[in-house]
Amino acid sequence: MTGAANLREQVRSITGRARVASRPLASAGSALKNRALEGIAAALEASSDRLLEANARDLARARAAGTAPAMLDRLALDARRIGEIASAVREVVLLPDPVGEVTGMWRRPNGILVGRMRIPLGVVGIVYEARPNVTVDAAVLCFKSGNACVLKGGSDAIESNLALAEVTRAAIAAAGLPADVVQLVPFTDRAAVQYLLEADEDVDVIIPRGGEALIRHVAEHSRIPVIKHFKGVCHVFVDASADLDMARDIVVNGKVQRPSVCNAVETLLVHERAAATHLPAIAEALVARGVEIRGCPRTLALVPAARPATDDDWPAEFLDLTLAVKVVDGLDEAIAHIERYGSMHTESIVTCDYANAQRFLREVGSSCVLVNASTRFNDGNQLGLGAEIGISTTKLHAFGPMGLEELTTRKFIVYGEGQIRE
Amino acid sequence: MTGAANLREQVRSITGRARVASRPLASAGSALKNRALEGIAAALEASSDRLLEANARDLARARAAGTAPAMLDRLALDARRIGEIASAVREVVLLPDPVGEVTGMWRRPNGILVGRMRIPLGVVGIVYEARPNVTVDAAVLCFKSGNACVLKGGSDAIESNLALAEVTRAAIAAAGLPADVVQLVPFTDRAAVQYLLEADEDVDVIIPRGGEALIRHVAEHSRIPVIKHFKGVCHVFVDASADLDMARDIVVNGKVQRPSVCNAVETLLVHERAAATHLPAIAEALVARGVEIRGCPRTLALVPAARPATDDDWPAEFLDLTLAVKVVDGLDEAIAHIERYGSMHTESIVTCDYANAQRFLREVGSSCVLVNASTRFNDGNQLGLGAEIGISTTKLHAFGPMGLEELTTRKFIVYGEGQIRE
Repeated sequence: MTGAANLREQVRSITGRARVASRPLASAGSALKNRALEGIAAALEASSDRLLEANARDLARARAAGTAPAMLDRLALDARRIGEIASAVREVVLLPDPVGEVTGMWRRPNGILVGRMRIPLGVVGIVYEARPNVTVDAAVLCFKSGNACVLKGGSDAIESNLALAEVTRAAIAAAGLPADVVQLVPFTDRAAVQYLLEADEDVDVIIPRGGEALIRHVAEHSRIPVIKHFKGVCHVFVDASADLDMARDIVVNGKVQRPSVCNAVETLLVHERAAATHLPAIAEALVARGVEIRGCPRTLALVPAARPATDDDWPAEFLDLTLAVKVVDGLDEAIAHIERYGSMHTESIVTCDYANAQRFLREVGSSCVLVNASTRFNDGNQLGLGAEIGISTTKLHAFGPMGLEELTTRKFIVYGEGQIRE
Repeated sequence: MTGAANLREQVRSITGRARVASRPLASAGSALKNRALEGIAAALEASSDRLLEANARDLARARAAGTAPAMLDRLALDARRIGEIASAVREVVLLPDPVGEVTGMWRRPNGILVGRMRIPLGVVGIVYEARPNVTVDAAVLCFKSGNACVLKGGSDAIESNLALAEVTRAAIAAAGLPADVVQLVPFTDRAAVQYLLEADEDVDVIIPRGGEALIRHVAEHSRIPVIKHFKGVCHVFVDASADLDMARDIVVNGKVQRPSVCNAVETLLVHERAAATHLPAIAEALVARGVEIRGCPRTLALVPAARPATDDDWPAEFLDLTLAVKVVDGLDEAIAHIERYGSMHTESIVTCDYANAQRFLREVGSSCVLVNASTRFNDGNQLGLGAEIGISTTKLHAFGPMGLEELTTRKFIVYGEGQIRE
């Protein structure tokens, strides 16, 4: 057997074990799963020393390889971060278990009773970067929703991830469920990712978590359905009737509170009738917080600090303190601009006009559309789903943040009394 | 421009027009869509002569090419069939419009009101065989659910399909909506299918309708998400406590009523404690209706007419009057057999035992699981969804029959009063 064939077999053996283990997990009750989750949280805290030692080896290797400080920060664990990971596990205990929910049931004219029952997807593959917290986070969300998972994290975090997965698996086994419901691919060879993406007999869905390059790679190379979002080019539209203070607060919050995330604002659209009254004050507040403004010609006339926007700025996801600003003729142009340049992620209108609020909500086709609220609310926790496993900007299966419910599907169940079809 | 590049451009132009037209359709109200559907039904009836002429040309070409009689029958239209197509359109008028439904709404601690609103998927591609009725059927289901569609039917039906699409498009335009929401790919070149499957910028989902070969081809060559089922290897399990008459009726109905369809029974599993009492009578009823039985050794001992089953028979989708029969030790073996050989399509248990009924419903992971009812009920109409656009045996997005609701997704909507994130 060649090395590659051998690696492929090993990855297949991992996904196959996840598939087998997924079956008893799918019919495990919530009480049992919650006991296991409590056990995972406690075991993580009790294993702090061992986890920090493994992480220290990863960090030493990454430092020697000249890894950038921001990457090292994402990779690093300390006692506080391990405590946060354990706390996040305990929060998952509190989330409702979607498995077994019957979302509707009706009687047909022939007397059969038809219902739809939530069941786990089966086996979820997660491909992510060198962030050890994702290992536990993804594993426990899959676990609570009755899914086995196959985790493939970034190579820089391999020792941390192996240690975290071992602690998690042992706690699951101690609770009486198969440890194999959590699988970590222990190979750093790039081909291992490809073999995982080809394991369509065992894995039901792939969720990539990371930057656009990782997500595109996974989407292009997977034979398994992928739930993905490439980027967030989010808009705020300040309507003619917008309250100035509210508009300023929402734009500043969307741009400045955490500029590196996908629900940060990248483009501000301002109704021409609000431009003279609102735009200078909003711009002033942004500039005071270090934001660089790239404006259309009408913006430049009102905001001396702005630089001219280029065509590249409208579809850009800056992920930093840069904001594209355009004055538009009205709601129609705002919606058309969002349709053309947006990424179907998150858009907000600031308005006092009832009809425009309703039209914006109805006609903008993004995964989250808001009236008079910050784009930063498009997040599973903020919207009330609990922790999120990912976010989707494609419309199949899930659109927007994915919580536990999005890790399930629904089968039809039928209670009959001997009915046959005429 | 080469011919191939030219064809690709033409297909892209078609999908692009569907994308543009999908936007006004997505926010069209139900009343307007229903008026257009009434217009389509009336126009089909009024255009009967023209449709039959086009169909006659397809039939003549197919006959000259030596097409099999069963295929010719699927291709053929007559006045009665056109009437049935129009009636099916009028039934879609009566179905509830899923678009705009808010499936839930809740207030968060900061006061924002969060809801999930159903919206169309966008553009649906349908790849199907030479069945002209699918052209109208798929178009109107997409239309009612606010989706544009791009239809690629079998080449043998090209003239029928073009005529049907033209009548449909004209009726939509007469109702004041863009005709381009219904697109028919007018090329019979095989490459046209491939260009459609690559149009991932314009098409949101592909639904193949046809035999397993067509579905596998589409699934393997599509860059767009595909909703599919390959085959239906459906099981009936006759439990130890089953009522004999009920078991016989359900097995006979599942096998004989329409053997060529995906929800017909292919394998009968019989509890060993019911084998001697039930199996001979069930087999006798089947044999009387021309069914060939392929049995396990224990079946052969009880059913003299049976032939020995081979390993190929357990995963087989016979689609004719053939049935594999196995005596099993009990519910556990039945569930394990279904898991190993089934296609996650449809399984039924016949039982008088409450616990076994509930366990079968819970543990069998197929798209439709029934107690004391025929597998033939796994069908959108029979389950109460109205007409179905397809059926899915993969768990992403839809599992089981897909009605109008499965042609939508849900976006998050947020009503705020100036909230920002802390």
